[in-house]
Amino acid sequence: MASTLHHNAYGKSAIRLTKVLRGPHRHELAELSVDILLEGNFAESYLRGDNRQVIATDSMKNTVYVLAKENNFESIEDFAILLCRHFRSTYSQVETAMVSISQTRWDRIQVKDQPHPHAFVAGGSERRTCQARIEANAASAALTGGIAGLQVLKTTDSEFSDFVSDRYRTLKDTRDRIFATSVDADWSYAAGKADFGACFVSIRAALLTTFATHHSLAVQQTLLAMGEAALSACPAIQSIDLKMPNQHRIPFNLEPFGIKNDNEIFVPFDEPFGMITGVVTRA
Amino acid sequence: MASTLHHNAYGKSAIRLTKVLRGPHRHELAELSVDILLEGNFAESYLRGDNRQVIATDSMKNTVYVLAKENNFESIEDFAILLCRHFRSTYSQVETAMVSISQTRWDRIQVKDQPHPHAFVAGGSERRTCQARIEANAASAALTGGIAGLQVLKTTDSEFSDFVSDRYRTLKDTRDRIFATSVDADWSYAAGKADFGACFVSIRAALLTTFATHHSLAVQQTLLAMGEAALSACPAIQSIDLKMPNQHRIPFNLEPFGIKNDNEIFVPFDEPFGMITGVVTRA
Amino acid sequence: MASTLHHNAYGKSAIRLTKVLRGPHRHELAELSVDILLEGNFAESYLRGDNRQVIATDSMKNTVYVLAKENNFESIEDFAILLCRHFRSTYSQVETAMVSISQTRWDRIQVKDQPHPHAFVAGGSERRTCQARIEANAASAALTGGIAGLQVLKTTDSEFSDFVSDRYRTLKDTRDRIFATSVDADWSYAAGKADFGACFVSIRAALLTTFATHHSLAVQQTLLAMGEAALSACPAIQSIDLKMPNQHRIPFNLEPFGIKNDNEIFVPFDEPFGMITGVVTRA
Amino acid sequence: MASTLHHNAYGKSAIRLTKVLRGPHRHELAELSVDILLEGNFAESYLRGDNRQVIATDSMKNTVYVLAKENNFESIEDFAILLCRHFRSTYSQVETAMVSISQTRWDRIQVKDQPHPHAFVAGGSERRTCQARIEANAASAALTGGIAGLQVLKTTDSEFSDFVSDRYRTLKDTRDRIFATSVDADWSYAAGKADFGACFVSIRAALLTTFATHHSLAVQQTLLAMGEAALSACPAIQSIDLKMPNQHRIPFNLEPFGIKNDNEIFVPFDEPFGMITGVVTRA
Repeated sequence: MASTLHHNAYGKSAIRLTKVLRGPHRHELAELSVDILLEGNFAESYLRGDNRQVIATDSMKNTVYVLAKENNFESIEDFAILLCRHFRSTYSQVETAMVSISQTRWDRIQVKDQPHPHAFVAGGSERRTCQARIEANAASAALTGGIAGLQVLKTTDSEFSDFVSDRYRTLKDTRDRIFATSVDADWSYAAGKADFGACFVSIRAALLTTFATHHSLAVQQTLLAMGEAALSACPAIQSIDLKMPNQHRIPFNLEPFGIKNDNEIFVPFDEPFGMITGVVTRA
Repeated sequence: MASTLHHNAYGKSAIRLTKVLRGPHRHELAELSVDILLEGNFAESYLRGDNRQVIATDSMKNTVYVLAKENNFESIEDFAILLCRHFRSTYSQVETAMVSISQTRWDRIQVKDQPHPHAFVAGGSERRTCQARIEANAASAALTGGIAGLQVLKTTDSEFSDFVSDRYRTLKDTRDRIFATSVDADWSYAAGKADFGACFVSIRAALLTTFATHHSLAVQQTLLAMGEAALSACPAIQSIDLKMPNQHRIPFNLEPFGIKNDNEIFVPFDEPFGMITGVVTRA
Repeated sequence: MASTLHHNAYGKSAIRLTKVLRGPHRHELAELSVDILLEGNFAESYLRGDNRQVIATDSMKNTVYVLAKENNFESIEDFAILLCRHFRSTYSQVETAMVSISQTRWDRIQVKDQPHPHAFVAGGSERRTCQARIEANAASAALTGGIAGLQVLKTTDSEFSDFVSDRYRTLKDTRDRIFATSVDADWSYAAGKADFGACFVSIRAALLTTFATHHSLAVQQTLLAMGEAALSACPAIQSIDLKMPNQHRIPFNLEPFGIKNDNEIFVPFDEPFGMITGVVTRA
Repeated sequence: MASTLHHNAYGKSAIRLTKVLRGPHRHELAELSVDILLEGNFAESYLRGDNRQVIATDSMKNTVYVLAKENNFESIEDFAILLCRHFRSTYSQVETAMVSISQTRWDRIQVKDQPHPHAFVAGGSERRTCQARIEANAASAALTGGIAGLQVLKTTDSEFSDFVSDRYRTLKDTRDRIFATSVDADWSYAAGKADFGACFVSIRAALLTTFATHHSLAVQQTLLAMGEAALSACPAIQSIDLKMPNQHRIPFNLEPFGIKNDNEIFVPFDEPFGMITGVVTRA
């Protein structure tokens, strides 16, 4: 019929990997979830079920474990680039390779105030993330690092007032509210090489410190301040993309019970949530 | 510092709405989750915490309920366009308005083989979806309809063989495997007006019928066939974007127990999963 | 130290199985998740790490797939009893064996109004469930069947009024509200043998019909009526345990916008939810 | 018909509360989810829809917020007892009151190595939990404290061998494996009063330290050691109930690729999982 395969891509998602580096004095632990997506000369599989150009997604999965074993990498960014390069250099039919990695946070258990050499406790919902992408004619990978699900809350130093008043407004101005969000940030590296681990640590610290200390007139304003702080903290990045859902804590109305709620008793709501986004770039 | 707010957008997500139309003989039920995202002249809020141009996301939420009450709409597509137009026409600072809606499926309970006038049973994980977007200088909305989470499985008529053989391959050729997927499809309407409900019904039927009857040499091939069938079924759409994760059912190895597994006993895996995507357009 | 291992039990959970019966004209499909829990003479493993009495949970997993292959069973109830008996008769150290099974609902895809012989579409969040338990000196298994996550909603024929009025009440009496719930029901079979499939079908129909047609003065009252209907529908069961969360749809307050909400516009809330439970037994 | 309401209970679940104590120098934050379940003289509601004895679950919700405001409590245990007593003393129709509370962990953000006075970062999936229950003729509450979702992993010092060998076994003996689990622990307090906060801290530390330092011959053995350590760490508790799912990390088979896997490369599986449980009591 009169139709065309306009675009296609395929890959393997959620390839979960635990890698242990068994040093003489302590073990290093990395737990990753890897997504691979390839574009290229795969149309015959769609058009005729001819799979001769198709790298099975099961083979992609195997590749992740084999390359994880055969290579030392210091960061998920390094591993993502390595995987992209592998798919591009091994298979001529691959034009664009994209690899996304998410890393679970594990902290060492403290035993007698010392970090234990091989026992860990999970550090929460936050994930370190990255994405590498090498396009058809690209000299190098486009690379982002990131953090996802960094859950923060401040009980004061947050206002929201003087916004549009019209028929649809019922929210009152407030000079003191709870500000809670789950920060998703993706930052783009100017070059394919940097001290990715140090960048992650300094950007995370900048995001947390700015969130804590910024006097917020709007989530928007704090988002921009956090983005600026991240750019200051890590010269290797060129821009940062921030998504900050406003996870509302609404004061519970205690008036029907003859009590005053002095900003002490709140109801957390998951839905609906405000969604504030912005991209901050180096000028 | 030397940084710039390069892009910004904000809105309200997961505004959940139940609307009941109380007809004389039977009730109509719609349960929706609405996401709104606005772009426009909002930089002052980011830069200075000056919120005078900001429509509170709480007001967006109110707007959804008010407009749901004041308007009859026959489909989520109509409601999404209506909301986009409202934000664009009411607030001069809004340049681009984007509204995404997801609708829960409810089927009428059968009582004595008759559909009940006001009692419903949930129809599964599948969602009817849509997205409307009106850009700054656009004459009309860009509109997609869709379905998300349409879970299907066939126990045979699915092959996968003759794919790339190299060091990383361990998967064998198979002439008969289980094919399970959760179809996500988004189709774009050529014009802002169509019988969206009839399109949804005919596209859903085309996707299901093609999945069931297509002899599959690859998920890729079935995806294309399903896309072509959808385009045939509904002349009002211009293209369809399909995402079909390969939700693997792996034959359990019964050999260690001295039994042969004649394609009868499988282990379902959620992770990892293959991800096959394609966009099919009218030629 | 002065402590005692007071109780212990262990097993394997979430053993997922897809079984296909490949008949000449059509295929039967069952997708199950099986949990096994054993009690018995396992204390040495806890006390000294002596595992000689321990059946590895990995072996339990293998057992599920092997017995699924080697046995024809018509229902999850039959398979659960079979597994319990296996563990009790194979291992003398096992005193109590408990097996719980949850089955995903798959409906045949309709092609030209005919059910397809081997293609299926997922039938939603509802699960058919069962639990078999054989205790140390028991002659036979204690057996329950059940349904979980049966999501239903009615837009009218539901009241709630004349409840306790005191300082803590703010909810008004209502003569017409939405009633939505996700029914979890477990029914106990009087004997270890019955037509479990027919019972499931008739109990499910009785629950749905009663939910739809009962004029509800309280969720509690409807729960009892549904329990009574289930007992009437299936003589083989002795009692039924019902859990019905009240999944609130709260009328959205349209007064600030100068509109009246004639029971048409509601906000669904997941949290908090009422939880109404009751056990109904044959007198 | 010939049926009886054998048992009934109802209440409100997932009442989410944020409480802020606004001290002069720093704020204290507590985020809780409260479940209330009542038993008593409520049969008329089930039998006839007569709700005169029914405390609306909406009123229970209000009660949580009102009592949270009117009372200072140092721990979720204190608040749970207070709520149980309230329902029992306020309503003569209440026989048994049960209150379960789950508390989210929030850690203070470190700014210049100092804990910030009012900004917090989420401390992961672990929850502090408790349950209070006052029965009909009880002088005092039965009380448990607990921790849920304490995710831990050790990369070595874990064995599993010499377990039952038979037809269903394929797992090999191992002298060195990864041991990962998500600890759920509930401990019962001997009396209704103790320093609940100090107990939680010392029990959590005992669980973590023992997990890290115990040389494990079986999950069962480590579970018992952890239970004993908890009883030693907190004299106020009488017993501890531990549930430790074995969250398997399976060595990836690298042999097909001509490489040896020296316990470095693993696949994490969520399903199926072993489930090891035990109750340890003071002798």
